[in-house]
Amino acid sequence: MPRYAYVNGQYLRHEVAAVHIEDRGFQFADGVYEVVTVQNGRLVDEDGHIARLGRSLDELQMGWPVSERVLRLIMRQLLRRNRVRDGIVYLQITRGTAPRDFRFPENATPSLVLTTRRMNLDPKARIDQGVAVITIPDIRWKRRDIKSVSLLPQVLGKQQAAAAGAFEAWQVDEEGQVTEGCSSNAWIVTADGKLVTRKPSNLILNGITRQSVLRLAEDDGLTFEERSFSVEEAMGATEAFITSATTYVMPVTRIDGQPVADGRPGALSRKLRDSYVGYAETTGARD
Amino acid sequence: MPRYAYVNGQYLRHEVAAVHIEDRGFQFADGVYEVVTVQNGRLVDEDGHIARLGRSLDELQMGWPVSERVLRLIMRQLLRRNRVRDGIVYLQITRGTAPRDFRFPENATPSLVLTTRRMNLDPKARIDQGVAVITIPDIRWKRRDIKSVSLLPQVLGKQQAAAAGAFEAWQVDEEGQVTEGCSSNAWIVTADGKLVTRKPSNLILNGITRQSVLRLAEDDGLTFEERSFSVEEAMGATEAFITSATTYVMPVTRIDGQPVADGRPGALSRKLRDSYVGYAETTGARD
Repeated sequence: MPRYAYVNGQYLRHEVAAVHIEDRGFQFADGVYEVVTVQNGRLVDEDGHIARLGRSLDELQMGWPVSERVLRLIMRQLLRRNRVRDGIVYLQITRGTAPRDFRFPENATPSLVLTTRRMNLDPKARIDQGVAVITIPDIRWKRRDIKSVSLLPQVLGKQQAAAAGAFEAWQVDEEGQVTEGCSSNAWIVTADGKLVTRKPSNLILNGITRQSVLRLAEDDGLTFEERSFSVEEAMGATEAFITSATTYVMPVTRIDGQPVADGRPGALSRKLRDSYVGYAETTGARD
Repeated sequence: MPRYAYVNGQYLRHEVAAVHIEDRGFQFADGVYEVVTVQNGRLVDEDGHIARLGRSLDELQMGWPVSERVLRLIMRQLLRRNRVRDGIVYLQITRGTAPRDFRFPENATPSLVLTTRRMNLDPKARIDQGVAVITIPDIRWKRRDIKSVSLLPQVLGKQQAAAAGAFEAWQVDEEGQVTEGCSSNAWIVTADGKLVTRKPSNLILNGITRQSVLRLAEDDGLTFEERSFSVEEAMGATEAFITSATTYVMPVTRIDGQPVADGRPGALSRKLRDSYVGYAETTGARD
């Protein structure tokens, strides 16, 4: 079965799907993106992702290439064509193609690219074991609240994690406080059972999964605090986990090689994961 | 006359020159670039640009897509095809095309893209008037020594400058010291005739033109100091200017709307510009 991608109005065979070499996404990282998970044909947290996409576009003074409504149709169309029931849809918008110049082009049409991928969203072994994270200095720019494709520091961080046999790298600010992972938000559970995750600001991306997990935690009667925590506090925490669109809630069992608590996924992390999977199954919009 | 671009082994019509949507340059800003000026058919500071390209690749653990020797041949070939005697050649290397994953792909071949553009390298009016700069906070990542395509902050800065009727935006660190322009290095001349420009570190890109101007200044018997300077010092300076591959040495006559000295290009800036133009004419490698 051929696999398709959507590129500026056309459904193209994935192998030949291309953008112009002067697309500003390619030359300037002048674009934004979202990854929406598809579970059993449902687009998980679709509204949240579309809303954040709109916010990213606004912050960069970029326009929508198509209306939100049409974008939602394209997502569904591409998922259907590629027969994805479980996986992701990736969408990227750039400021468009124009002769290379840092300044915004006057008449460029934003580019829109979508791809999909089938994925196992419930990798049992990984959840049972949890994942390892390392900590690295956060060297990113100051507008991490914008989900831009200016991802080179995250590429380097994830690669450093992989080289150390870890799944993720937690980035740490100059005060020794964890900001977030390279592609996930960072959480800990304190000795008295409180969930802690950093407060949204320009210094982190306000994860859509993060926001849903906070709501689910509230519904479950859990207490939480949105504040910074240090690497030391995380190492002494009762539990730790990450959240992201593709990993949902994933227990963290090692930080810089040291086990978190007894080195096994914690009860709260598992409970929140179950809540999120249930939420994804029932409340996501149908494809 | 058709215009060509070079893309991964092929000379293509510029209009249809494209890269895959999963090129890591497009999805992750995982690539580097150089701009080499061509003056009267000579590639100005070619060796310096190639050397810095190699350094950028090394820092990102990326390989050369072709040998340095072949790259130099491709540059010349493309300039010839496009009949560029005065202008620029733009070259970009990315980590290649691979299924989207932050971590380095195992078997991707680096992408190589070149374009050229004809340009007026000696815009008399601009030099006679000088250019205006504004100052903005430097919000970039911490590895500005790598000439990567992760340029979104510079895009926003240049746009802000344009919106303010200025040519460039000088970025200012948290201590109030100028780091550099969005696509140029920043210089001032002190009351006692000393050139001042920031010392290379991870916090600025060590401009190739910057380095050549320092050598020319030395040859001309000028004194210089590589150190930081504040916005205040710049506003009270005798002269100010910027250097870059495409602007050479360009006088700065206004900073945040205030004239520098009498608001006219300074004598040293002009002298250095003349030296650089002469250097470019005689020492650049022939196309």
